[in-house]
Amino acid sequence: MALLGTKVEIIGVGNELLHGRMIDRNNGYAAARLSALGFTVTRIVFVGDERRSIRSVLKEAGKRADIVLVSGGLGNTGDDVTVEAAGQAFKRPLVLHRGLQREIRRHVESRNLPWNPLLEKLAWLPKGSEVFHPRPKTCGFQVTEKGILYFFLPGIPEEMKKILDRRIIPYLLQHCTGREIVRSRTLRLFGITETEAEEKLTGWKKKFPSLTLGFYPEFPELLITVTAKAVKTREAEGLLDRFEELAEEVLGTRIISTDGRSLEEVVGDLLKEKKKTLSLAESCTGGLIGHRLTAVPGSSAYFDRSLVVYSNRAKKALLGVPGRVLSRYGAVSKETARYMAEGVRKKSGTDLGLAVTGIAGPGGGTPGKPVGTVWIALSSSTGVRCDPYFFRGNRTQIKLLSAQTALNRVREFLLDAAHFFSS
Amino acid sequence: MALLGTKVEIIGVGNELLHGRMIDRNNGYAAARLSALGFTVTRIVFVGDERRSIRSVLKEAGKRADIVLVSGGLGNTGDDVTVEAAGQAFKRPLVLHRGLQREIRRHVESRNLPWNPLLEKLAWLPKGSEVFHPRPKTCGFQVTEKGILYFFLPGIPEEMKKILDRRIIPYLLQHCTGREIVRSRTLRLFGITETEAEEKLTGWKKKFPSLTLGFYPEFPELLITVTAKAVKTREAEGLLDRFEELAEEVLGTRIISTDGRSLEEVVGDLLKEKKKTLSLAESCTGGLIGHRLTAVPGSSAYFDRSLVVYSNRAKKALLGVPGRVLSRYGAVSKETARYMAEGVRKKSGTDLGLAVTGIAGPGGGTPGKPVGTVWIALSSSTGVRCDPYFFRGNRTQIKLLSAQTALNRVREFLLDAAHFFSS
Repeated sequence: MALLGTKVEIIGVGNELLHGRMIDRNNGYAAARLSALGFTVTRIVFVGDERRSIRSVLKEAGKRADIVLVSGGLGNTGDDVTVEAAGQAFKRPLVLHRGLQREIRRHVESRNLPWNPLLEKLAWLPKGSEVFHPRPKTCGFQVTEKGILYFFLPGIPEEMKKILDRRIIPYLLQHCTGREIVRSRTLRLFGITETEAEEKLTGWKKKFPSLTLGFYPEFPELLITVTAKAVKTREAEGLLDRFEELAEEVLGTRIISTDGRSLEEVVGDLLKEKKKTLSLAESCTGGLIGHRLTAVPGSSAYFDRSLVVYSNRAKKALLGVPGRVLSRYGAVSKETARYMAEGVRKKSGTDLGLAVTGIAGPGGGTPGKPVGTVWIALSSSTGVRCDPYFFRGNRTQIKLLSAQTALNRVREFLLDAAHFFSS
Repeated sequence: MALLGTKVEIIGVGNELLHGRMIDRNNGYAAARLSALGFTVTRIVFVGDERRSIRSVLKEAGKRADIVLVSGGLGNTGDDVTVEAAGQAFKRPLVLHRGLQREIRRHVESRNLPWNPLLEKLAWLPKGSEVFHPRPKTCGFQVTEKGILYFFLPGIPEEMKKILDRRIIPYLLQHCTGREIVRSRTLRLFGITETEAEEKLTGWKKKFPSLTLGFYPEFPELLITVTAKAVKTREAEGLLDRFEELAEEVLGTRIISTDGRSLEEVVGDLLKEKKKTLSLAESCTGGLIGHRLTAVPGSSAYFDRSLVVYSNRAKKALLGVPGRVLSRYGAVSKETARYMAEGVRKKSGTDLGLAVTGIAGPGGGTPGKPVGTVWIALSSSTGVRCDPYFFRGNRTQIKLLSAQTALNRVREFLLDAAHFFSS
């Protein structure tokens, strides 16, 4: 099967998807990942937890697509009927998967949970299924029916994404390209639009005829997936390395990572590498930067504290911002941002101090300082730098853009401290 | 046609939906609105801008559903083929809609745009279509084919929602219920599972035969939608009021709101109402509680600061947690939580001080204090209360549960301060 042109249908199972109570995160993500790799996603269908509907979408999809990706309804409550429906659709009995049964028993015993025969429901799968992730609750399996590959995944977004990225995509890349090797890499960017990035990379595309590029914005970032085909792994990886080098030349530090790491992970790794510690003074972001930094396990090695100083009183008492600065220039000003960054760095004794102060709206704007005005300051022992930003969007978007830009400033400083303060 | 039990299928047309480049906002919204009113949404399908696929989903949907809602692909570029596909599916020629043609000409003339015959493409609709919104670019129309009602709407989310809310829903309510009125309300709960809530409400259901209940977990909360049918609006609202009263009796303070407000909005409103101010000392939540509180416009009226004290040094310096307490009991302990809550309240001069300290994992757990151990303390001038929690989940889930539980403790205190400290 050739990768390009391979038709994929995606099926999401769950009443919650039909009631619009949950924004679908799984299926849009899967569609984006697979499209970026060059597969043709032809249909996405959501159905409820109902045997008949699931049975019929499974059969219909098999008539049109080469690959069918199903998520949801794999749990052990009465609602979860995907496995049963699959058995019926494929006319295969459910059989006990011993490995999975053992895992479930081990799980229950290790947590001293009361035993319930229903728990073993998870280990009964359509005959001929291959389990590729034998974990209780987050198991995934695949069945080949009349030449069509069906993948079944849990509906929990984190688990679904993990299995998709680590198991299914590598498998598909191998499976669909025959003797060719397909490898892909995702570039995470910030500070550039899809159109700009596409323009900048167009010239290079000709130099790499065997590469496929996919662009997908993920607010406020842009992801670019590059897929390489070659006869040997080494050759494919070499192509990707060369592309990455050239991409770095034209896109520069707008590339956050090429290995899947988030901005906060990259900042954390740089802080560890440079042996620097960081403290924060947050106003309009309200704690979001601290929340993002602490989402990374082990962040206590470099993150000391965040002072969320929402009131002027807190800015004075905790950071030593002088009252006259606040009254003369206002809380959202270059001067206040500078005092905040220097104050938090000195008081916490960290190497770096990062401060954000702005107007997230919808109220609080003035003609001179409209909603979206944000000052970001970074202080180190060698200097302090303040910059103004004017973001557009609603309160949520302005908070997101402020936190993202501020974290990105720390990354830019750590990559090139000398240039940071002089430019 | 009776409203309850009426089957609706929703179809989204557009390549961007299949590439995962755009999060679907239209169809999820339509599903939520229609489900809340008591319609049964049985399937949501996304297809690309391709005549054949659109034709086939239109025909398939008509075999299963009573109502089919289609959005996207109505524009006048070459990509937009929904109308053509509908004509083919229903075997109806496209005919010129004079009213729409006039509107298009008027629009073009009033803006001094150059005339292009392609603009008139928008006025050609399947024979027998009824236009319910004769506007260029944002037109919507309906066709009845073999007794099935098909609605066609533009794909631009704002326009789609406007037409849905102002034209289609009022029409459907009238059409499907005859002289009945349908009203719905959503209860937001925390601290109760779907099964528990269902059990507790089962008895009441018999007293309200004309009510429909829907349960939707939205981690870590549970949403319950109640829909009432009656002859008059007043009667429907009265039924909902009575249900709400009884639900409050059995579910008590586990109900966060019945009017769509989030937990942080409810806490904010209670703080304003009781004229109280709040400060935070966050450890394992890393700033998430501050981020949630400041997501609410106007939160500066009651939220003063959050001290995100990730290091022990910060806990000592900023909150006055004694070194001996930290070394004797540890950073995750009743004693430290108490010092944090009292410290932040006194130092910031607010009425309330809320503190959270815990182990979010994956590292840092011990047999005595496993990952997921979290202490939450609330301090006021009349006392301080500390409680231990043992959450299960990954780092993200433990942070979410800690922030949610902590905010909920503030709500419980504000609802009944006397009982809070004595229980």
